[in-house]
Amino acid sequence: MTEPTVRRRGRPRDADLEDRVYDAVIEVYSETSWRGFTIDAVGRRARVGRAALYRRWATKDELLVQALEARSPLPVPIDTGSLRSDLVELVTQLLRGYRTTPGLVSLRVALDARVHPDLLANLTTTLNRSRLVAARTIVLRAVERGELPPAVSVTLLLEMVTGAALSHVLFSLADPGSAADDDAYARTLVDAAIRALVAEREHDPGAVT
Amino acid sequence: MTEPTVRRRGRPRDADLEDRVYDAVIEVYSETSWRGFTIDAVGRRARVGRAALYRRWATKDELLVQALEARSPLPVPIDTGSLRSDLVELVTQLLRGYRTTPGLVSLRVALDARVHPDLLANLTTTLNRSRLVAARTIVLRAVERGELPPAVSVTLLLEMVTGAALSHVLFSLADPGSAADDDAYARTLVDAAIRALVAEREHDPGAVT
Repeated sequence: MTEPTVRRRGRPRDADLEDRVYDAVIEVYSETSWRGFTIDAVGRRARVGRAALYRRWATKDELLVQALEARSPLPVPIDTGSLRSDLVELVTQLLRGYRTTPGLVSLRVALDARVHPDLLANLTTTLNRSRLVAARTIVLRAVERGELPPAVSVTLLLEMVTGAALSHVLFSLADPGSAADDDAYARTLVDAAIRALVAEREHDPGAVT
Repeated sequence: MTEPTVRRRGRPRDADLEDRVYDAVIEVYSETSWRGFTIDAVGRRARVGRAALYRRWATKDELLVQALEARSPLPVPIDTGSLRSDLVELVTQLLRGYRTTPGLVSLRVALDARVHPDLLANLTTTLNRSRLVAARTIVLRAVERGELPPAVSVTLLLEMVTGAALSHVLFSLADPGSAADDDAYARTLVDAAIRALVAEREHDPGAVT
């Protein structure tokens, strides 16, 4: 979403340094919270000097956003050609992503934003918006292809699908599933959610949501 | 779930002290994470001496579990007589509950348990199990009443409903809804989820999940 040339400020790219720093951001944040997260703690973890860090990242907000974007659990736009397989891929990536440390950190940031809205509101709005747009694009393409009625509740469909995936990872008492379990869960969930939205149109074709 | 007479160890109940301590637990945890959460930090916040705290709560695990149970966002068992209104009530309580500090803390604990599984796994399993049982009871009663087919996917239905509510609170870009917005959202969501599960039986009556 952000233009890399803008955020790198014209300095020569140092991919190795960036990688170490982003890994350190994810580690430090996963162990602490917004209050414990500082540029200096990241520097110690990454073994990078303060000067090098501050030269590239002016604030800890900026550092956190860029690390989360770089380590996003949804790195690649999904476009398989059908709604069902797009959503199955989305759920599979979310199940896998939420179990990784960067996935956990993105959730931790969302919670911290509710405790410190003054500090984190803009940051999470930026992060959520880009993910939300990516997910909405899947549904809007399906409407264009005629797979869903134009008046479908895009938000409801996505909240059911992505929310169930989140809930499955966070609160399920079962052990983390195998890849095959995740795939079966994703298919069952997506079928149910599509059925819910399509059945809505069949039962009440006049409703606009 | 726990027997109060056991956990109070026969000491006289001091409801005021307990209230202050539980409020302090929620505040301290909401600002920190598992690592920052200590009995001493709770004592300072609640203005209660260490001796009084350690007399009642032997470990910080025990203190945290009891505070979360006492401040649970789902305090009262839901039993309105129909599946639809039970689930609407569940979603409404979750939307409201996740926006409170104790609701945030319960989510924070679930995330911390993934970073420190050795410390928090048992604790969160205990907490999740009682909530999960409460929610499953709603669906199982509906099956008994014949509102849902016996082979319905209880977990899938609940994960769609509770997950969407969680996602709605955590990631929605809209401002927190009014009570009327929450109610409308809860009704739309529950109708869609029930439709998804009932339609499944109509389309594929042989499936067992």
